[in-house]
Amino acid sequence: MSRPNAFYAQSGGVTAVINATACGLLERARQHKDRIGKVLAGRNGIVGALREELIDTSRESASAIAGLRSTPGGAFGSCRYKLESFEANERVYRRLIDVFEAHGIGYFFYNGGGDSQDTAHKVSQLGKRLGYPVTCIGIPKTVDNDLPFTDTCPGFGSVAKYVAVSVREAALDVESMCDTSTKVFVMEVMGRHAGWIAAAAGLAKDRPEAAPHVILFPEIAFEKDRFLRKVRATVRKVGYCVIVVSEGACYADGAFLADAGTRDAFGHTQLGGVAPTVAVMIKEALGYKYHWAVADYLQRAARHIASATDVEQAYALGAAAVDLALAGRNAVMPVIVRKRDKPYRWTIGEVPLEKVANVEKSMPRNFITRDGFGITERARTYLQPLIEGEDYPTYKGGLPQYTRLKNELVPKKLKGFRV
Amino acid sequence: MSRPNAFYAQSGGVTAVINATACGLLERARQHKDRIGKVLAGRNGIVGALREELIDTSRESASAIAGLRSTPGGAFGSCRYKLESFEANERVYRRLIDVFEAHGIGYFFYNGGGDSQDTAHKVSQLGKRLGYPVTCIGIPKTVDNDLPFTDTCPGFGSVAKYVAVSVREAALDVESMCDTSTKVFVMEVMGRHAGWIAAAAGLAKDRPEAAPHVILFPEIAFEKDRFLRKVRATVRKVGYCVIVVSEGACYADGAFLADAGTRDAFGHTQLGGVAPTVAVMIKEALGYKYHWAVADYLQRAARHIASATDVEQAYALGAAAVDLALAGRNAVMPVIVRKRDKPYRWTIGEVPLEKVANVEKSMPRNFITRDGFGITERARTYLQPLIEGEDYPTYKGGLPQYTRLKNELVPKKLKGFRV
Repeated sequence: MSRPNAFYAQSGGVTAVINATACGLLERARQHKDRIGKVLAGRNGIVGALREELIDTSRESASAIAGLRSTPGGAFGSCRYKLESFEANERVYRRLIDVFEAHGIGYFFYNGGGDSQDTAHKVSQLGKRLGYPVTCIGIPKTVDNDLPFTDTCPGFGSVAKYVAVSVREAALDVESMCDTSTKVFVMEVMGRHAGWIAAAAGLAKDRPEAAPHVILFPEIAFEKDRFLRKVRATVRKVGYCVIVVSEGACYADGAFLADAGTRDAFGHTQLGGVAPTVAVMIKEALGYKYHWAVADYLQRAARHIASATDVEQAYALGAAAVDLALAGRNAVMPVIVRKRDKPYRWTIGEVPLEKVANVEKSMPRNFITRDGFGITERARTYLQPLIEGEDYPTYKGGLPQYTRLKNELVPKKLKGFRV
Repeated sequence: MSRPNAFYAQSGGVTAVINATACGLLERARQHKDRIGKVLAGRNGIVGALREELIDTSRESASAIAGLRSTPGGAFGSCRYKLESFEANERVYRRLIDVFEAHGIGYFFYNGGGDSQDTAHKVSQLGKRLGYPVTCIGIPKTVDNDLPFTDTCPGFGSVAKYVAVSVREAALDVESMCDTSTKVFVMEVMGRHAGWIAAAAGLAKDRPEAAPHVILFPEIAFEKDRFLRKVRATVRKVGYCVIVVSEGACYADGAFLADAGTRDAFGHTQLGGVAPTVAVMIKEALGYKYHWAVADYLQRAARHIASATDVEQAYALGAAAVDLALAGRNAVMPVIVRKRDKPYRWTIGEVPLEKVANVEKSMPRNFITRDGFGITERARTYLQPLIEGEDYPTYKGGLPQYTRLKNELVPKKLKGFRV
């Protein structure tokens, strides 16, 4: 393989900017046609490799590829699929090799979060373990912001901006209504294990009495009485209370708020619904009229309000993945290295995948105020640059024009494989 | 009163552009200082007049007033307060006259929806009924889009744009995930009595298989089996199903979906929560993994994605209200008159308040497809111009800079009054 093809796949929950990473990778690869053949994208992530459903990205025009930079979601489809270990399931690794061999694949780019970097790490061992060497680069992505070593994860900055903007706007609404109507507004945000996204909502607070007045983090055990006292004191002082609650907020025993108590109609199989739980709790204890919102996918798909910093980093990491592969690096992940807080300066670094796989970066306790309901200056210093700048998509007829690829599959050469 | 003062108040649920109307009104009034003294704004709507809590807008700088054009919420506070009839409560009308007289108020501008226009109409009768003539102009505002005679109501176009953009974005997310994960996404939107906002979400559909695949309107009686069949057929054909449900969606007997069945934990005192109800219904019947979102206040506060058309109309109606008052008109409301669909051309007209008060404009049945799950071309022709154009606020540090007024009250001259 003097000019091997490359495989690229998107994995796990998608974001507003994972396609910007694809854009950076594909545009950089096209600059190196002498060394990289086609980039074949997995249809629905690595599942596409196993099923031999490989999208021929060479069929896409330059303008379609460029359009990915401002298109949310995963243009090739993503998956929730965790590769087992060699020992547990050598069969899937042998299948990967069969597919890679059949399609001349010498580069493997995997774009995802912690689980995905674990997958990428396993694939990087194919040479050593099964005699089929492939240059393997992981590319970070996750709105959860929980990958280690990188300053931030593409996708997070845009969610952070969305929640901060949304809470600032909704707070103006509640403030207008609170004299004779709604006094409490509860907004639920993503973040099952860590409060990064909830913390970002705190950026909306630009003066002591501004919203959000209370943030409920997964990191801080929920104490109902203390919480209700805080809400009451806020309504008495400010006139209203805006609360941001992480979907992962939980009691000291680890039980999720959304699962606890009697009002658990929606929490059985998926998180979500902690906002109404909290709102009803307040209504019953304090009698305040409430409204609540659950942004769910809207927050991580909101390309219309993406952070320009996030878009730029997502793109740069995609391009850097190609550079690393061409430099002969294997089993590494490009990362964002912060050089300076203000003005924010960053560069691209790299870390070995074995150090990244299955490690979760938690939010430092000193990002949360002593009372557990807000964020500190340290958190602001970290978070603020990540939401900096706007990067609007093109609109037509009042709506953003997002790119749809042709997504043509290359002909299959192998027998079927059951995933 | 050769140079009477004016009273302006915001009423009912606020919007992303009600302050743009205030901006238009205040800027136009300042151009006529020879004929209009100060504009005094009611703190928290007409309640501010009754309490003699009058904000002196002359204390605000020109740039602060200009900033209102791009600030969501109600800058002076709003209220939910319905004026009773003369017969039922003459006391409040006499109080209004006392306050108007004490503060030299000869113009009354009331910015709100149907109930508010009823209030404005009653106030316009003060001269005839109680011998204190006041020039009274109602100004339309409501995200519900249910005021008669006007082509649309300021606030609606921006909500319409928000829901159409959001559903398009979230659909790309679901499409990416549907192979191995989420197959159904349910988004709840406002609209208790009419499906205008739900219909606007239909604008996101730009090809036959695009989302939203199902819209549940308050106008169409919900039939569970037919709905579930449609969802299943959509998932089988497209791979996923995106559903937009109006908070007012109901069964044939008028029972709200959010209130019906056993999972009614949240519907007792306020609507909201129909999205999880629908999602769980699908999960139980069809087994699909789901996500759901309830945008609630986020949708009507989302100035960051406001429709430029909406902003322009909101501003123009505020300015027109002053023009009408100065032209000696009383008991009228300026309205948007559509001159042409494509390109959209509109002008300002006027209607008598007595014709507007307490009349609700319902959505024509021919805006909804025969099967009840989508919108027709006729609906598109009406809706599309209303979301046209972007009008971004100014950002600083990654967040929109919204204006805060000083809101200084003029000294009280009267005794207290219990509202």
